[in-house]
Amino acid sequence: MSFEKIDQLCRKLEALEHSLAILGADEATHMAVGGGEKRAEAMSALAGMHHARATAPEIADWIDTAQQEALNEDQRAALHEFRRQYTNMTCLPTEFVERQTTARLRSEQLWRDLRPKNDWLSFLPALDGIVALVREEAELRAAATGLDRYDALMEQYDPGHRAIDIAPVFSELKTFLKGFVPEALAVQEERLAKNPLRPLSGVYPIDKQRELGLAMMAAVGFDFTHGSLSVSHHPFCGGVPTDVRITTRYKTSDFLSALMGVLHETGHAMYEQNLPKPWSHWPLGKARGMAMHESQSLFVEKQLGRNPAFWEWALPLIEQYLGEKWSKDEILAHVHWVERGLIRVDADEVTYPLHVILRFELEQELVSGRLKAADVPEAWDAKMRDYLGLSTIDTPQDGPMQDVHWPSGAFGYFPSYTLGAMMAAQQWAALEKLHPSVDDEIAKGKFDTVTTWRRDKIWSQGSRWSTPELMERATGEKLNAAHFTAHLKKRYGA
Amino acid sequence: MSFEKIDQLCRKLEALEHSLAILGADEATHMAVGGGEKRAEAMSALAGMHHARATAPEIADWIDTAQQEALNEDQRAALHEFRRQYTNMTCLPTEFVERQTTARLRSEQLWRDLRPKNDWLSFLPALDGIVALVREEAELRAAATGLDRYDALMEQYDPGHRAIDIAPVFSELKTFLKGFVPEALAVQEERLAKNPLRPLSGVYPIDKQRELGLAMMAAVGFDFTHGSLSVSHHPFCGGVPTDVRITTRYKTSDFLSALMGVLHETGHAMYEQNLPKPWSHWPLGKARGMAMHESQSLFVEKQLGRNPAFWEWALPLIEQYLGEKWSKDEILAHVHWVERGLIRVDADEVTYPLHVILRFELEQELVSGRLKAADVPEAWDAKMRDYLGLSTIDTPQDGPMQDVHWPSGAFGYFPSYTLGAMMAAQQWAALEKLHPSVDDEIAKGKFDTVTTWRRDKIWSQGSRWSTPELMERATGEKLNAAHFTAHLKKRYGA
Repeated sequence: MSFEKIDQLCRKLEALEHSLAILGADEATHMAVGGGEKRAEAMSALAGMHHARATAPEIADWIDTAQQEALNEDQRAALHEFRRQYTNMTCLPTEFVERQTTARLRSEQLWRDLRPKNDWLSFLPALDGIVALVREEAELRAAATGLDRYDALMEQYDPGHRAIDIAPVFSELKTFLKGFVPEALAVQEERLAKNPLRPLSGVYPIDKQRELGLAMMAAVGFDFTHGSLSVSHHPFCGGVPTDVRITTRYKTSDFLSALMGVLHETGHAMYEQNLPKPWSHWPLGKARGMAMHESQSLFVEKQLGRNPAFWEWALPLIEQYLGEKWSKDEILAHVHWVERGLIRVDADEVTYPLHVILRFELEQELVSGRLKAADVPEAWDAKMRDYLGLSTIDTPQDGPMQDVHWPSGAFGYFPSYTLGAMMAAQQWAALEKLHPSVDDEIAKGKFDTVTTWRRDKIWSQGSRWSTPELMERATGEKLNAAHFTAHLKKRYGA
Repeated sequence: MSFEKIDQLCRKLEALEHSLAILGADEATHMAVGGGEKRAEAMSALAGMHHARATAPEIADWIDTAQQEALNEDQRAALHEFRRQYTNMTCLPTEFVERQTTARLRSEQLWRDLRPKNDWLSFLPALDGIVALVREEAELRAAATGLDRYDALMEQYDPGHRAIDIAPVFSELKTFLKGFVPEALAVQEERLAKNPLRPLSGVYPIDKQRELGLAMMAAVGFDFTHGSLSVSHHPFCGGVPTDVRITTRYKTSDFLSALMGVLHETGHAMYEQNLPKPWSHWPLGKARGMAMHESQSLFVEKQLGRNPAFWEWALPLIEQYLGEKWSKDEILAHVHWVERGLIRVDADEVTYPLHVILRFELEQELVSGRLKAADVPEAWDAKMRDYLGLSTIDTPQDGPMQDVHWPSGAFGYFPSYTLGAMMAAQQWAALEKLHPSVDDEIAKGKFDTVTTWRRDKIWSQGSRWSTPELMERATGEKLNAAHFTAHLKKRYGA
């Protein structure tokens, strides 16, 4: 049976993915400094073996034959998603992939060197090359998938979302935020005038912060028989569903930064831990893409972790682990801090979407050819002034050079961040409608209702549906910016 | 070029070996408890890919063709060792390997269950099956290698040693030890009568023991840019030469047990860290087998770590890290403890070889067919009474059921332990002859002379020579029991 052949192939691929995931997590957490070169060789060889197996030409026949076999509903869904991924993985000719890989590596290295030097002009030729390759890639992907060019790029990260659907939602959100950011800042000013910010000024020992993080992870529902928390330079969620590795980094002067990071990664981790196990080796059993994954991390970090009800339960824990008494107002002033800034990764949940929408708009122009790489700094600056009232014209390092995405050729990824934030708000709204007293439960440190809803509606579904389908099934409606704007108004509004 | 083809193959194999080594070390140190099943699947799939690539039939032709190519001396040595390993890996038919793998897994599981129950009779049928398979394996290996049957088994673990050479050396050592064990015990009794043993009775915090271990590792020459120390249930040396993972386990009541373990594994680790890097992907660049590896760990643990000179330097460290003052005599009474016991892994360096020689003698009888599995308990007991004056007739769990080796089908491995101890003593003798004041250096915590000698003579040679050849080149003579017996007499004699 061809379906059985694909099943066996998927088991081999899962073994290689498992190995790559653990080797990657190990590299960031436990590898000796001198082990990097051989680790890179080993991972690159394993990735090559994975790619060769996953894209073997005979698989196309297996898929066609399997389609004729007597399959149950699950198997049919598995085959459908397998075909989608096979198409996405095989639609670029080897010659193109080689050219692109070389260009990406060079451009990324150059970027690492030139960003600290604020040197846009030396970087421009590399970015020009990358943009040309992305246009070529978009053509190839569009031809293979029948999608529009930018959609064909997004499809790798967020299956099912189309620019034609997202653009109006983002546009609505942008209009709202341009007015709302000043309002939220005014509210904050007013509050600060009455109650000055209590600084995070203690010395918070790392082992105590770690224990606090572990206690919160356990309460929220992280399964420690299938995962762990350690330290790395950049926090991440890695590993495999049966052994999810999340990391954070600690500052002894600020316990919130590590803690919010831990909650964020816990959201990613719980998605992985609760995917449908019998299909773990098939694409069907994997998480539904970057936007949905981000919605799960943001759900825990923003919808739960920055929810005032959460802090009724959490403040006594802070006191227990760190020996400091904080009032709810004092901590919320930090947790709900809003600030106009140049850097996306440092942005709060109010201003963050504007950073993403700016990139989404420029990316589409770059891919379509309407914008040249050389004109990006001016275009970036114009939007930055318009959306956040800030200029980056003299500091490209804090403008178009700030992210690794473009230098590494990842176009179509940025929307996932804000789609994730909107989806998390919409999920929360659906959940709260069904369970109006969920805040009371959270205030008592009870997360069962939340976890059960998320498991049923999202996690257990794996990749059975496209992102928009999954959202509609889970929340009863299509992506709707109103939930996110309502969330912001409630939390930050006048 | 065929040599180049093999070189490329070796790089792929190295990547898979790297992955398996790191996944294995991770499993024992950092894996979540629920991650085991998927980890086993991943490692078994990777091992299968490794075996399929390493034993592909076309490689035989590549070797033959490469032999005709213009190769330099290193390449010739690399090809020679590659051929030896290819022969050893391909000489068993797949059908046999499958039968044997199934039998080994069952027998090992059964043994884990029955050993704690002291139930020899229920285990016997499984062992009978394993012995039959080992005889078959020995025939197959003998036919492929042209070696005697037991030698063909040993060849997997310790290339080049032959029973006909080892047997007389072991016999000489046995005769010596039967007389020497009582002498060493009498010396110990006499000393204890004058100076009672000072018990290890403090509470030694794990983090302090760890820091002490790290300080000693660094002093002895462990390279922390290419390795690390962590904790596992069973201590081991794993990982890869560029990132060697050693582990220990701590008892808060006894700092010597973890420390001696750390020194032992440091010996293994330094061998791996100093192998010839340009050949790391070829068998030529790998360590020379189990006996030589054990000689390197025992060199550090016994020749250095239990050397009285070592403790002149080490005692102040104990005081610094653990806050306890010990005199040299007090600590040496522990470090040089001798005791007749039933269990090999708990034995000291005086009695240990008798445990190994007993197994070496019985193994040969079992493989040749002169001894039946059913008769092992009586044969074991008779030798145990003869060599150590102890009986195991009523406690097979502490007799022939104590080791995992036979239940898992590993015959021909045991000699490596005592060959390693003898080789370490012979290496020390050669080094001391060349550098008569090496003890003075060690007493000052200076290990450069030792490290340089070992790197030049042993580590840098990789697998260029068979074990006996390497020993003869390093020490100027063939394996000679006199060095080991002289070592024991000096340290433990009257």
